[in-house]
Amino acid sequence: MLPASLNRLLDLLARLPGVGAKTAQRFALHLITDDRGLAGELARELANLEQRMRKCTRCGHLAELDDQGNAICRICKDNRRDGALLCVVGSIQDLLAIERSGAMRGRYFVLGRLLSPLDGIGPNDLPLEELTGRIEADGVREVILATPASVDGEATALLLARELGKRGLQVSRIASGIPHGGDLEYADQITIGRAIDGRRSVGQD
Amino acid sequence: MLPASLNRLLDLLARLPGVGAKTAQRFALHLITDDRGLAGELARELANLEQRMRKCTRCGHLAELDDQGNAICRICKDNRRDGALLCVVGSIQDLLAIERSGAMRGRYFVLGRLLSPLDGIGPNDLPLEELTGRIEADGVREVILATPASVDGEATALLLARELGKRGLQVSRIASGIPHGGDLEYADQITIGRAIDGRRSVGQD
Repeated sequence: MLPASLNRLLDLLARLPGVGAKTAQRFALHLITDDRGLAGELARELANLEQRMRKCTRCGHLAELDDQGNAICRICKDNRRDGALLCVVGSIQDLLAIERSGAMRGRYFVLGRLLSPLDGIGPNDLPLEELTGRIEADGVREVILATPASVDGEATALLLARELGKRGLQVSRIASGIPHGGDLEYADQITIGRAIDGRRSVGQD
Repeated sequence: MLPASLNRLLDLLARLPGVGAKTAQRFALHLITDDRGLAGELARELANLEQRMRKCTRCGHLAELDDQGNAICRICKDNRRDGALLCVVGSIQDLLAIERSGAMRGRYFVLGRLLSPLDGIGPNDLPLEELTGRIEADGVREVILATPASVDGEATALLLARELGKRGLQVSRIASGIPHGGDLEYADQITIGRAIDGRRSVGQD
């Protein structure tokens, strides 16, 4: 019913996260009927992405290949960042979320995966050697574990805290509790438990 | 925070229908981290789309440019189709939906737009000359108006029925009523009214 090349495009679009056959068809028809050249522009940017975009060899964030064939991201290149402070995150998405908050003045290390026994991801599947190598090379003294507050994220943070604690580093875990603007009435029991466990003294300064 | 080329890609992805900034970011990160070469394949198919895919010059459906520079779709090329029967649809999506039903043995004409006074689309914005030219060139005797059962679709069908009726063609409108498997209890008043107006006699053959 459709030209073969269009069916190939539909199959590729359906590999994007959350995109099924119907959405892929909507995207494809939009790409064909767009008169501002969206398909062509997207083709060029994707080709450029494939040729130039890599993971930063130091931290795993996104980076463009430079003329010497190195891929170092903007954050690792930024000399105003505190090299002694390292924030360990699970994914690039999480790194971007923290960057948007503006609360991190150090650099990052992206694990790329979390401990997940159900998915067969054990301690040996985590990039622990790369992480300790980075810590030694950069003279890191403080590590913030910013993996998610999920079961897998907590397990990963626990493992890293044990491994890094042996090395005499200052290791901390991001706080878990009631989100900003959140109602206690609608918070789940675990969140409330964590908020109480993680309470901080006030009014004594 | 992100490389400039990635921001350009995000802007392009956000031009797809229903895709906002967050979804565009999810798509982009998936494209970068996919290790089966999705970005590159998609770039090639999109470039091919831009170069080869056109609207069929006869009916407005999708077609690939052939070596002579003509764009004729599969349906217009298919000699088993009844050339005297023409189905007028609003969009390529609607054409595909009818084709999936397997209920149409004639050919199509895609209007590309519907009458819509609110959007400033009047009778002169519809491809009426192309439609009548097609009807004369192909010796069409019967026209099925398959525009949507919406306000704009009904107005468009009414206009076309008037224009084509003058030419001594057999013109019909697709039925409107309770959908297959539909409950009367949950059908709206207009649908029930149409189902009753469009009733067909039974048990008298």
